[in-house]
This record gives sequence, structure tokens and C-alpha cells, in this order.
Amino acid sequence: MYLILLTSAVGFLALLVVSYLAWSILKEPVGTPEMKAVADAIEVGAKAFLKRQYRTIAIVASLVAIPIGIFYRDPRVVVSFIIGTTMSLVAAYIGMRIAVKTNVRTTNAANVSGAKAFVVAFRGGGVMGLLVTGLSLIGVSLLMYIYGDPNVIIGFGFGASLSALFAQLGGGIFTKAADIGADLVGKIENRIPEDDPRNPAVIADQVGDNVGDCAGRGSDLFESISDDYITAMLLGSILLLPMGVNAYVYPLMLGAVGILATIVGIFATRQWGKLKPIMCFNVGLFVAAGISVVGAYAASMYLLNDVRIFYAVVSGLMASLAVGLVVQYYIGINSGPIKKVAAASEYGSALNIITGLSYALQSPFLPFIFILIIVLFSYWITGGSLYGLVGANIGTDLAIGMVMSSDAFGPISDNAQGIAEMSGSSTNMEALEELDAMGNTTKAFTKAFATASGTVSTLVIFATYSQLVGMDRITLGLTSPIIIVGLLVGGVFPFLFSSMAIGATAESAYKIVEEVRRQFSEHPGILDGTEKPDYATCVDIATREALRQMVAPGLLALVAPIVVGVLLGKFALGAMLLGGLCTSALLSPFFTFGGGIWDNAKKHIEQEFWMKGTPTHAAAVTGDTVGDPLKDVAGPSLNIFMKLTNMTALLIVPLLLLL
Amino acid sequence: MYLILLTSAVGFLALLVVSYLAWSILKEPVGTPEMKAVADAIEVGAKAFLKRQYRTIAIVASLVAIPIGIFYRDPRVVVSFIIGTTMSLVAAYIGMRIAVKTNVRTTNAANVSGAKAFVVAFRGGGVMGLLVTGLSLIGVSLLMYIYGDPNVIIGFGFGASLSALFAQLGGGIFTKAADIGADLVGKIENRIPEDDPRNPAVIADQVGDNVGDCAGRGSDLFESISDDYITAMLLGSILLLPMGVNAYVYPLMLGAVGILATIVGIFATRQWGKLKPIMCFNVGLFVAAGISVVGAYAASMYLLNDVRIFYAVVSGLMASLAVGLVVQYYIGINSGPIKKVAAASEYGSALNIITGLSYALQSPFLPFIFILIIVLFSYWITGGSLYGLVGANIGTDLAIGMVMSSDAFGPISDNAQGIAEMSGSSTNMEALEELDAMGNTTKAFTKAFATASGTVSTLVIFATYSQLVGMDRITLGLTSPIIIVGLLVGGVFPFLFSSMAIGATAESAYKIVEEVRRQFSEHPGILDGTEKPDYATCVDIATREALRQMVAPGLLALVAPIVVGVLLGKFALGAMLLGGLCTSALLSPFFTFGGGIWDNAKKHIEQEFWMKGTPTHAAAVTGDTVGDPLKDVAGPSLNIFMKLTNMTALLIVPLLLLL
Repeated sequence: MYLILLTSAVGFLALLVVSYLAWSILKEPVGTPEMKAVADAIEVGAKAFLKRQYRTIAIVASLVAIPIGIFYRDPRVVVSFIIGTTMSLVAAYIGMRIAVKTNVRTTNAANVSGAKAFVVAFRGGGVMGLLVTGLSLIGVSLLMYIYGDPNVIIGFGFGASLSALFAQLGGGIFTKAADIGADLVGKIENRIPEDDPRNPAVIADQVGDNVGDCAGRGSDLFESISDDYITAMLLGSILLLPMGVNAYVYPLMLGAVGILATIVGIFATRQWGKLKPIMCFNVGLFVAAGISVVGAYAASMYLLNDVRIFYAVVSGLMASLAVGLVVQYYIGINSGPIKKVAAASEYGSALNIITGLSYALQSPFLPFIFILIIVLFSYWITGGSLYGLVGANIGTDLAIGMVMSSDAFGPISDNAQGIAEMSGSSTNMEALEELDAMGNTTKAFTKAFATASGTVSTLVIFATYSQLVGMDRITLGLTSPIIIVGLLVGGVFPFLFSSMAIGATAESAYKIVEEVRRQFSEHPGILDGTEKPDYATCVDIATREALRQMVAPGLLALVAPIVVGVLLGKFALGAMLLGGLCTSALLSPFFTFGGGIWDNAKKHIEQEFWMKGTPTHAAAVTGDTVGDPLKDVAGPSLNIFMKLTNMTALLIVPLLLLL
Repeated sequence: MYLILLTSAVGFLALLVVSYLAWSILKEPVGTPEMKAVADAIEVGAKAFLKRQYRTIAIVASLVAIPIGIFYRDPRVVVSFIIGTTMSLVAAYIGMRIAVKTNVRTTNAANVSGAKAFVVAFRGGGVMGLLVTGLSLIGVSLLMYIYGDPNVIIGFGFGASLSALFAQLGGGIFTKAADIGADLVGKIENRIPEDDPRNPAVIADQVGDNVGDCAGRGSDLFESISDDYITAMLLGSILLLPMGVNAYVYPLMLGAVGILATIVGIFATRQWGKLKPIMCFNVGLFVAAGISVVGAYAASMYLLNDVRIFYAVVSGLMASLAVGLVVQYYIGINSGPIKKVAAASEYGSALNIITGLSYALQSPFLPFIFILIIVLFSYWITGGSLYGLVGANIGTDLAIGMVMSSDAFGPISDNAQGIAEMSGSSTNMEALEELDAMGNTTKAFTKAFATASGTVSTLVIFATYSQLVGMDRITLGLTSPIIIVGLLVGGVFPFLFSSMAIGATAESAYKIVEEVRRQFSEHPGILDGTEKPDYATCVDIATREALRQMVAPGLLALVAPIVVGVLLGKFALGAMLLGGLCTSALLSPFFTFGGGIWDNAKKHIEQEFWMKGTPTHAAAVTGDTVGDPLKDVAGPSLNIFMKLTNMTALLIVPLLLLL
């Protein structure tokens, strides 16, 4: 068991590095008072939102803790649940706090050089990457050290999933309501540029980047990696019986390897010669991947003495990185699909949207094939052991620290550009624009990565459920129609969930649109630049709406599995999980890629043809706006939705076995 | 076996009534020479398209017939296949020929009275309704009488499915490319009204209504009902062994009951007092449903002596009619969702589309629940027999004749209004508009009905496949990952298929847009009304593009099950069918309802607020255009796609059993 303590020590090492990174960022100067004023407004808005959001999540979590306590009659489960819920939010909160302090310093660092700005911004992202992986490893390994039973720790994973769903939903609704509101009234109705300080919703938009992309995705990946540790230990305790405690240590040790690789990778991500920022990031990513592979080999041989599981781990890592190529193919700024959608914009917004839809619908195909290949490969290489899939799943997590860092880098450089724009102190706009463009790519990659990794995670959670309730005794075929019914019901819930998430964003966006229109009409001086707009009211409306609207879709993930499990039984629930996995894992990339395609088609038109203000550009802006709630609310939330429904099912297994 | 001959006699009776209806329509006067000129142009275009389309389908079918012949070494299967392919096209062809002769007579009848126009138009639709149900019953029952083995007749169903997929795809692409082209350049770019004779694509648009909604849907429902007869006989021969030949007769007898009920229903659909047309249709529908129930009771008791199967049949009929209520809730012109989407248009086209998407994503929920209820009910009421589901499935077909009639009524009244508009001989526009609005509702109902009924059909085809290959020996759970992989692969194909169908429509629409723009710019006299536009070129381009673009997605339905079956085996193929059913049955209503919602939101704005020409109306037109390829290409084709993949699997069962 001392090895488990060792892994948690690596978690604490990550926190040490976080402190160093934070110190090295905070000692950078913040620039002019104008820049600081904008940055402060963003920081105040983001902190206020998270505070109110966390209060709502705390209420929901307390209400959920009661039935867990009553039903399990085991305080350890409740404690795990509370710790999981809390640590997920703490990781996201601290990570975001540092991110909103990094943005303005990035703007300022661009004065020195583009390379300097890149390093500052990426280290700001690295804080989030190491916090998420470090705190997750500390939480799971210490709980495991203390309680010694992975069944008890399901509560931790469930809590992390619960937090993540609300964090992603709330943050997503906030950021897209603000973004759509700012764009519709500012860019389309009044033809003022993006990030123009005259737009009353512009600060809310910047705040949204932080609470959605940064904090939301932080909670998402925290739960992803935590759930993976827990299911790996659960299945390890069944499938790797002769290995004893090593079956518990192995996934945590891989987590420690991932963290060490991330630390090296973050410092290896710097300006290399004349390479573009995205290529410098690739250097760091591949250094980290290389270290992970070596470490995974050592861990697999030392702890399990089984090279086949090592191959499975590597297949998972490779598949998750290969998804990046698919992202490049569909969303790369000069890719074929982007050019086609940009060209379609010449025929108006309807054909822009139709063409984008067509690509979005085909985009899940390749990532899906990668996932299916590793499922078959890991099963085959381990001679038919389910543990091969577990290995592949942990393999997808090895890069999570670097991916998370690059994701949080996104809103930092987006904000940095926004601050330069709004404070009028544009120093080295070219460098900042390059970083922002890279941030868009890494954000898109993170979402696709999270979905692919989340799909494998869900398969493993389902496999765990399946083992615990004995799904393997159930046959397919219409002789047991309850299974078919469960499967189809499972398929429909992600549609319903997406409908709620997108509808919630639209409802919130109306409110922002009305507020911005009101300010423009009641204070005509705003557009002339003679009056200051009221940013705070827009932030406040977005906060209120996002918190109000996130509850219903969030509860669906809890209620649906319980209702189906109780009404139709444990096997129908298993089938429901499988149906839900099938449609979630398809709808999520459909939304995420679709939104990314419309977004970059618009950027392509701006960069290649300088066509801002033309009908073609307006058509592309409409497509981008349609894609907003898809790519930043429905898509990423669905990814958590599928895991949370499975975790809920796992949590109620003892109840289902009684029925 | 004489009873089988009796059922085919009812099929011939249907053809007799068809002749009477056609005669009663053709003796009506065609009106002014201007009206006749427009009607002739539509007729020529529609005939030319079907001729070229059928040639392409004939080539594909011949290529498919060769491997069937080689593999089965049974000429009876090949003969069944050829007859199935042909009869489906013949039914659609004759039905559409009558429909394009009815449209102008409806315009003229409106001079006499609205009631007269309604009766003429509905009888024109009734021709299609009786042709489809009559020819299907004749084909299946005569083949069964001659061959005596339902296994041989799978070829008939497969042929009907193959024709239907290409007919729907080709017709759908044609109609929507023309529609989008006409709208984008006419309504949006040049702000001329819909159906304006100055628009060069206007005739292609009218032709499209016939080849898409009328001929396409005719082939769709022909295959639906044919497949249902065949699977019912196949499963009956296994599950109802003691019933002997009665198990074969029963589904055909229900088909005969449905035809008799349809005949009465068509004549009962007339102007009743002051009722609105849609209510008069409801009278006819409920009369037909009532007769069907009585007939189904008699057939169930006489042939099977089992009242439980009768209950299952009635549950199927009720569920398929209940789908109509859901259509009313989402797409009714004054429904809540329509009002919301119309209101969202005030915030621009992006929020119109986002709000519509949100409703579209939730719309599959209720129809799905109805389907799942009848699956469970029919299983429970028959004490756990799979034949209960077969009964429910035939139950969904009882209303097919009336529904098909009301569907074909749609393009007839749409054309009637268009002819009045184009020929300038508007006599009683109000009555024609009312018929057109009713046609929109019945078209939406038919698509939703076809999907719900198609979902149950697919379940039964899957059940048949499952019985033949012994899927019930296979267990669910990740211990056999091949099943999970099959399921997920199955889920992704409908996404890929939709992508191809929507992309094909967009590609074709670009061509029409360019042609219309070319005509307007090279012949400025067209817009002044001093020059005649060249309608024929637009029809020709739409024809060429539709035929070129329909091939790839059509082949996917054939290739996917063969590749998966051969590579991964018969059980993985079974799982693939189930995964495909799950996503097709959800995506199809998502597309169909979504398109319907955007269409009627636009109409709502026109009718309630007279806002044509405003930005709000333009936003709604964009939404309507986005919905076009979804509701008339992807949605209805997916419905056939899921049946055809299952029929393909059924056809290759002997091959799979050898592997």
C-alpha cells in the first residue's frame, strides 16, 4: 500500500509545480491601467459567477447526499461523494483564478515578444492541467489508502461527475448566451467589431470564456480521469484477482506517470526556434507522450508483469492523439470542409448551415472507428480479457494533463486578445491573434479528445455495471423485448438532454439580446463612445439565467437511470446505458465538430478574403452563432451526461440488486 | 390457400376503384389554356424525371440481381426481387401520373366551390393510396400463392426497399434542390413571391413536389407494407406453427381489411356540413379506422381464434394514429413550439434555427414512447409471444391507405395553388390556400406516421433476422465486445447516410442557384416580365444532379450490412442493425419534425402578422430553407435506410450461416 501513498506524493508534487507556475506568472507585470481595468472586470464577473454557481451545485449535492446516506448507511460513501464534488470544483476554481490573472499578463508580455506571451499563456494553462490531474490523483489515492475498498469510492467519481455536469452546463449556457447576445446585437445589428468596448455584453462574453471553457472543461476532465481510476480499480479487483493490491496500484501509478510526463511537457512547451506556437505545443505533447509510454511500460512490467496490457494502454493513448488529426481534417482553418462551408456562405446563411450540417453529421465516423479499433485490439491483445479495455481507457488519460493545459490556454489567449482590443493598448496584435487561433484549435481538440476518451470511459463504466448486475446472463434478441425497449429509451434521452441544453441557451440569449438592445436604445451615447455601457448588468443576467436553466437538464441525468432501473429493472437499465452511450457518443462530436466547422469557416472568410461586412461574411456569422450552443453547451455536456448516467447506475447497483 | 387468392381479389378490387376514381377525375374540365400550359409543363418535367430515374434504378437493380442469382441459385428469389422492384415503381408512377392530372382540375374545381376542389384533390390522392396498398397485396399474395414459401418472397420486399430508397432519395434531392434554388434566388435575393412565374426554377419546384412527396413517398409506403406482410408470414411460419397456412393468410387478410376500409374512407372524405377540410379528412380516417378494427377482429378470431393478437393489432393502429397528435402539438400552425420559433425569428435567423433545433431534438421522444409502449403491451398481452409485436406492426399498416391518400393530396393541392398563381387565373385562392395548408399538415403526419410504422417494421425485420441467425444465443455485456462494436458501428451509419443525403441536396441546390442567377443576369427582361424564363433547363439540371447524387448514399444501405456481416460476423451484424435502428429512428423524426417546425413557423409569421418582406420573415425563410433537406430528403430516406439495411441482412442470412 505504500505505493499508493507514493502516487499521492506525485499528486502533491503537481501542486508544488502549480505553485511555482503561478508564482512565475504573477510576478509578470500587468501593463497599463486600462488593461488592468478590463482584466479586473473580467475577474470580478468570473469569480461572482463561480461563487453563485457553486452555491447552487452545493444545494443540489446536499439534496443528493441525503438519499445516498440513507440508502448506503455507510458514511464512507457520503464522505467520498462530498470530497469528489468539492475537489472537482476546487480544481476548476483555482485553475480559473490563475487563468484570469494570466490573460492580462499575456497581453503585456506580447510587448516583449510573441514567444514570451506564448510561454506565459501556456504556463497559465499548465496550472489547470496539473491541478486537475494532481487533485484527482490525491483524492482517489488517499481515499483508497484510508478505506481500502474501491466500491466505497464510487461516491467520489459520482460526485465529480455531478459537479462536472452542472459546471459545464452552467458555464456553457453563460458563455454562449453572452456570446450570442454580444454578436447578434453588436456584430449583426449594429455592425461593430468583435470585442468592441462599446458592446455592453463584451465583458460577459470574456467572462464566459473563463467559466465555460476553462472552469467547465476542468471539471469535465477531472471527473473523466477520476472515474477511470475508480472503474479500473473496481474491475481490477475482479479481473486481476491474483495481482492482489497491485491491481489497485496500477491505474494510480499510470496516473502518476501521466503527471510526471505533463510536468516535463509543460516546460518543454516553449518557443523552439522559428516554429509556430502550435508546433511548439506539439513538441511538448510528444515529449510528454514519449515519457508516458516509457513510464507505462515500467509500471505494466513491474506491477502486473504483463506486456500485453502495456500494448492496450499505448493503443488508447494513440487513438486519443489520432483524434487530433481528425480535428485538423475537419476544423483546420484551411481544411477542405472549412473551404467548402466558407464557399457555401456565398449562397447565403441557409446553405452555409446545410453544408456545415452535412460535414458535422459525418464527423463522428472516424473517431468512432478509432475507438472501435482499440476496443477490438485491446480485447484481442490480452487474449479476450476485459482488462485490456481498462488499460486502453487509462491510456487515453495519459495525455490529459497536456490536453487540459492546452485547453485552458485557449480562453487565456482569447481574453488576452480581447483585453488588448478593449483597452486600446494593442501592442503586438499579430502575436496575440496567432495565439488565439492556436487556442481555437486546442479547444476543439480538447473537446474531441474528451468525447473520445469519455466514450471509452463510459464503455468501462458500463462494463463495470454489467459485471456487477450480471448483464452477461442476458441475451440479445427480441425474445426479451425489455432489453430492446431499454436500448431505445436510452437512445432518446441524449436527444432530450441536448434539446434542453440548447433551448436553455436560446432562452438565456434572448434576455441578453434584449438587455443590449435596451442599453443601445436608452443610451444612444454608447455607440458614439460618449457613454460607458453597463457591463455588470449583462454579466448578472447571464449568471442568473445560466444557473436557473442548468438545473432541469442536469437532473435528467440523475432521474432517467433511476426511473428506468426501478420501473423496468436492472437489465433494461443496462440496455438503456448502452443505447445512451450510442447516441451520446455520436451527437456529442456531431455538435462539437459542427460548431467548430462553422466557427472556422467564418474565420477562414475573414482571414483569406477580408470579407467582413459582406453578405457572405454575415451568412458565415449566422452559421457560427447556430454552432455556438452546439459546440460549447450541448456537445461537451453530453459527454458528461453519458458518464453521469452510467455513474448513477453504478451507484444504485445495490438498490437494483434488491429489487 | 383459396383465402390467399381472395385477398389478392381485394387487391384487384382496389385497382377497379382506382380506375373509377381516375375516370371521375379525368372527366373534370382542365380550365383555361394558361392553366393547362402550366400543368403541362409540370407533367412533362415529372414524367421525364421519373423515366430517367427509373432507368438508373433499373441499372442498379440489375447489378444487384446478379449476385442474388449467383448466390441463391433459386430463380424464384430473383423473380420476386424483380417483381418487387418493378411493382413499387409502377404504383408510384401511375399514382403520380394521376396526381399531376388532378392538380389543374383542382384549381378549376375551386371555381365551382371549395368543397368540390377538396373532393377532386382528395380523390386524386386516393388513387395513390389504393394503388400502393392494392399492388402490394396483389404482388405478395400471388407470389405466396404460387411459391408457397415466404423465404423466397424476401426478394420482393428487398426489391421494394431498394426501389423505395432510390425513389425517395432521388425525388427528395430533386424537389429540395429546386425548392432551395427557387427560394434563395427568387424570394431572398430578388424578393419576388413564391410560385412567381418569373422564377426560372418555379416549374422544377412544382415538379419536385410530385416526384418527391408523391412518387417518393408512394414507394416508401409500398415497401413498408410489403415488408410487413413478408416478415409477418416468415415469423408466423415459425411462431404460429399449429395454425398452418392460416399464419400466412392472416397478415394478407388484414391487408385486405385495410384496403376495404380505405375504399370506404376515401368516399367518406367529402365536405361534411361546414367542417374544415382537415376535419372532413378526420371523418374519413376514423370511419376507415373503425372498419379496420371490426375487420381485424373478425380476421383474428376466424383465422387465429386469438383475441389477444387482435388487441396487439389495435394497439399498433392506435399508436400510429396517436403520432398524429404529436405532429399537431409540434407542427400545428398555432402550436406552442411554432409560436416560440416564430417569436425567435425576431432575434434573427440564428436564434430561429437554434430554437427550432431545440424542439426538433425533443420531438422524437413522444413517438418513441408510444412505440415502446406497444412493444411492451403487445408482448405482455400475448403472454410473451413475439407474434404480438408482429400483430402490432400490421396494426400500424391498417391506416396506410388513408394516410397515403392524404399525403398525395398534399402535392396536388400545392400544385393547384401554384398553377392558379402562375397562370394568373386565381379564382378562389382562399379555398386553395386552405387545401394547401391542410396538405402541409397531412404531409407532415405521413412522414411521422411512416417513421413510427417503419420503426416497428424494422423491429420486426430485426426480430426475423434475429430468429434466423439465433441472436438469442448471444449475450449482452462487454464480455463479447464484438456485439458492442457492432452496435456502435450500426449507430454511426445513419449519421453518415444523413450527411451524404444532405450534402447531395446542397450540391444540387448550388447548381440551381447558379442557373437561376445566370438567367436573371443574362436576361434582365425576365424580372420585368418582358422575357420568358427557361424552365426546362432548371428541370434538367435538377434531374441530372438528383440522379447523380442519389447513388452513393443508396449504396451505403447495401454495402454496410454486407461488409459488417462478412468482416465481423452475423451477431455483430445483428447488433449493428439494432444500433442503426436506434439512431435512424431518432434522427428521422428529428429531421422531419425540425423541418416541419421551421416551415410552419414561417407560415405562422405570414398568416398571423403579414410580415412578408421584414427581417423577421427573412429569418424564418432561412430556417425553412435549412429544414428543407432535413424534412424531405434525410428524414424520409433514413426511414427507408433502416428498413433496407435490415432487409439486406435478411437476404444474406444464408451466406452468413455459411461463414
